[in-house]
Amino acid sequence: MAKDKKMVEAITSMDEDFAQWYTDVVKKAELCDYASVKGCMVIKPAGYAIWENIQNELDRRFKETGVQNVYMPMFIPEGLLEKEKDHVEGFAPEVAWVTHGGLEPLQERLCVRPTSETLFCDFYAKDIHSYRDLPRVYNQWCSVVRWEKTTRPFLRSREFLWQEGHTAHATAEEAEERTIQMLNVYADFCEQVLAIPVVKGQKTDKEKFAGAEATYTIESLMHDGKALQSGTSHNFGDGFAKAFGVQFADKDNTLKYVHQTSWGMTTRMIGAIIMVHGDNNGLVLPPRIAPTQVIIIPVQQQKEGVLDKAYELRDRLSGFKVKVDDSDKSPGWKFSECEMRGIPLRVEIGPKDMANNQAVLVRRDTHEKTVVSLDELEAEVAKMLDTIQADMLERARAHREAHTYSAVNWDEFVETINTKPGFVKAMWCGDQACEDKVKEETGATSRCMPFDQEHLADTCVCCGKPAKKMVYWGRAY
Amino acid sequence: MAKDKKMVEAITSMDEDFAQWYTDVVKKAELCDYASVKGCMVIKPAGYAIWENIQNELDRRFKETGVQNVYMPMFIPEGLLEKEKDHVEGFAPEVAWVTHGGLEPLQERLCVRPTSETLFCDFYAKDIHSYRDLPRVYNQWCSVVRWEKTTRPFLRSREFLWQEGHTAHATAEEAEERTIQMLNVYADFCEQVLAIPVVKGQKTDKEKFAGAEATYTIESLMHDGKALQSGTSHNFGDGFAKAFGVQFADKDNTLKYVHQTSWGMTTRMIGAIIMVHGDNNGLVLPPRIAPTQVIIIPVQQQKEGVLDKAYELRDRLSGFKVKVDDSDKSPGWKFSECEMRGIPLRVEIGPKDMANNQAVLVRRDTHEKTVVSLDELEAEVAKMLDTIQADMLERARAHREAHTYSAVNWDEFVETINTKPGFVKAMWCGDQACEDKVKEETGATSRCMPFDQEHLADTCVCCGKPAKKMVYWGRAY
Repeated sequence: MAKDKKMVEAITSMDEDFAQWYTDVVKKAELCDYASVKGCMVIKPAGYAIWENIQNELDRRFKETGVQNVYMPMFIPEGLLEKEKDHVEGFAPEVAWVTHGGLEPLQERLCVRPTSETLFCDFYAKDIHSYRDLPRVYNQWCSVVRWEKTTRPFLRSREFLWQEGHTAHATAEEAEERTIQMLNVYADFCEQVLAIPVVKGQKTDKEKFAGAEATYTIESLMHDGKALQSGTSHNFGDGFAKAFGVQFADKDNTLKYVHQTSWGMTTRMIGAIIMVHGDNNGLVLPPRIAPTQVIIIPVQQQKEGVLDKAYELRDRLSGFKVKVDDSDKSPGWKFSECEMRGIPLRVEIGPKDMANNQAVLVRRDTHEKTVVSLDELEAEVAKMLDTIQADMLERARAHREAHTYSAVNWDEFVETINTKPGFVKAMWCGDQACEDKVKEETGATSRCMPFDQEHLADTCVCCGKPAKKMVYWGRAY
Repeated sequence: MAKDKKMVEAITSMDEDFAQWYTDVVKKAELCDYASVKGCMVIKPAGYAIWENIQNELDRRFKETGVQNVYMPMFIPEGLLEKEKDHVEGFAPEVAWVTHGGLEPLQERLCVRPTSETLFCDFYAKDIHSYRDLPRVYNQWCSVVRWEKTTRPFLRSREFLWQEGHTAHATAEEAEERTIQMLNVYADFCEQVLAIPVVKGQKTDKEKFAGAEATYTIESLMHDGKALQSGTSHNFGDGFAKAFGVQFADKDNTLKYVHQTSWGMTTRMIGAIIMVHGDNNGLVLPPRIAPTQVIIIPVQQQKEGVLDKAYELRDRLSGFKVKVDDSDKSPGWKFSECEMRGIPLRVEIGPKDMANNQAVLVRRDTHEKTVVSLDELEAEVAKMLDTIQADMLERARAHREAHTYSAVNWDEFVETINTKPGFVKAMWCGDQACEDKVKEETGATSRCMPFDQEHLADTCVCCGKPAKKMVYWGRAY
């Protein structure tokens, strides 16, 4: 495969420099590019097509649970942002401020939404009157802006795309139920579609969302052993409702405050796909999220009938997302290009294959080659895509299991964090001082208090006082 | 139908006050609401569902022509906006300026995109190298901001949603071809899906897009006789390419400038649907864009078997977008509510209908009632939705024909413009002074020089000099 060398050489090995490998894949797989505004990105067709698939899959799942889409303005007046105390403290330092409209200075500054709780609350306060108006289960797809100092494509950018769901309920129980329901939608989507296994749990008070009563999270583990917060779901109780006056007349004719939730998932999931599944040949896409699932590459395409056969196979495979690479590049170049782009399955067809009524199937994830009879092509492709999807999830799960450790005392904890990239499970007393100490001395943070609790020890791994919770700790993106 | 009165009374009659009627429909059909930022809107579920259908229909048509979706940043540095002289003059007076990121003032102001030509050019200048990179046929779905002084929901708001396509081509011919191709996509979409007939033509130099060589437009006529620019497609020639240095190495190894186009359609089309099809009972949606096409209303639903029958019919009609209104409101209230919301077809089913194995179908557009046998239900519903769609287009076309006039001299022109709401066709010398005079003395503007030219007279309707073009004139939103 000497011909492939040039393209493959252009990627840094992931073992050598994971950060550079990531940047190389983003660039070489043509997912996104830097823009003229620092920290903003141009999402290119190959990257945006993945986002469209994420949108379609999530949106369908949302709507099955009764979600309705809406669109709120992108601007928040400063006075509105300030209505909920914790919220403004969390977000004001990192928003972009609009001060002029046209040639005139504005009377009140507007921030570009970093998230839209305040806008939904302002709207709900006018729009909700009676218990008959509840629940409100709204979502919007939009872009938001957070003026981050350090940025990385997809993982942390000053502008990113996301969805944000915002709901209002008559009771605390119903709000909590919705919060967990949406977390489960995210977890199911990650595992079933993105082939990324997640740990479900609750954030500590230190790590929860500004203004939330409880934040739930799904945490995934990247190939380099760092954690990625992959989706969050917040229960606000009636805190925002009180700050914004969102009240309804209940069946008993008394005025009550609504209970609210919000939940979001972002374009950073494209970064997660890269870092969970990618390898030294580039991107590896799970079949269920891949914009192109099958690429047909004609070999010796100048020979009579080869291209026609490739088109015939494409037509036969029209139940999948299929393309023929009929460009004038060499087959070797095409092979490494479709590997770089992460296309799950490659079908090679040349004169010799035609003579034998066969094609060669090559899996992107394992590079495994299988010769199949053309009579069985559709069934074999379907089977192989299913296998790839299942194997990718299992491999990612095995990687996470192999990189999840536990520690019962401080020395063991520090040693593990420092030498073994991955999650470390350890007991915690519930005191923020211990989280601060862990952060300061190891750079790790509490990722979550998992729903699946284990009793590893009686005492906090940090201070030795009685333990309240088992926590997943790790360094994170 | 005394019970319906309350709801219907709440809308102003369109003949009495069209502007107030429009506002009433927007509000009562729950399409959108005002936001806390002046001139911005909250698009509510009923409005956003229409936008989602517009997006799906357009996006599918775009992709069939080879369009790829991308996402560009929402911010444009001031220096970038200024690169193309005509463009900045057109847009700078009406943009929102970001001057602070977090707590720090920015070194260079950023405007919130009013349109993204400059961003695409900046990107293409880096991304296009060779003729092999062409054509680039990119589109994005996003929101844009224009700091308008006078705003109206959907028709003119400070922030609105749209798609903007931006393409780069090797030759002038190919760019012109794409410009016209996309105009035709818009025209076809308006007529076939929105049931809104359009006049296709070219804008005069006075009315063209800031920085364009040629702007093509589709113009539609609202119920009150005012015109609405409904979609535009611009050919930039190589003007932007020269300003931004977008060059490629052609097959002959010489460096050439690309030729560019852009084209857009916005949420104002929701306003067009309201103003073309609506009536004094509210919104009337064409079946192909309606989020709910068929509503089943049980009559005497407390009687045994009625609700079950309604659900059974819903299941049988699952090939359509169908809902049952099983709320505890009265049938009369439900009737006027589904009229207000513009649902194309209503199915009434009660005990007497059940006894006769029939249902009553009521068309939203004509209020016509038809009793159909339940044995024929699916077929009758399909047929009736097709008929409604076709009739709505024909009625809108007939309305436009009846409100399209021609004038061959100044007195006739002014008399027609002032007394007959609608389009006025008249000859024009090509001189902007005449356009200015028309605007000043009648408030009308040149809507377009239609592709279908007619020879109405030899001389300009305004100055009497030799005529060059027939123009559609009208007052416009």
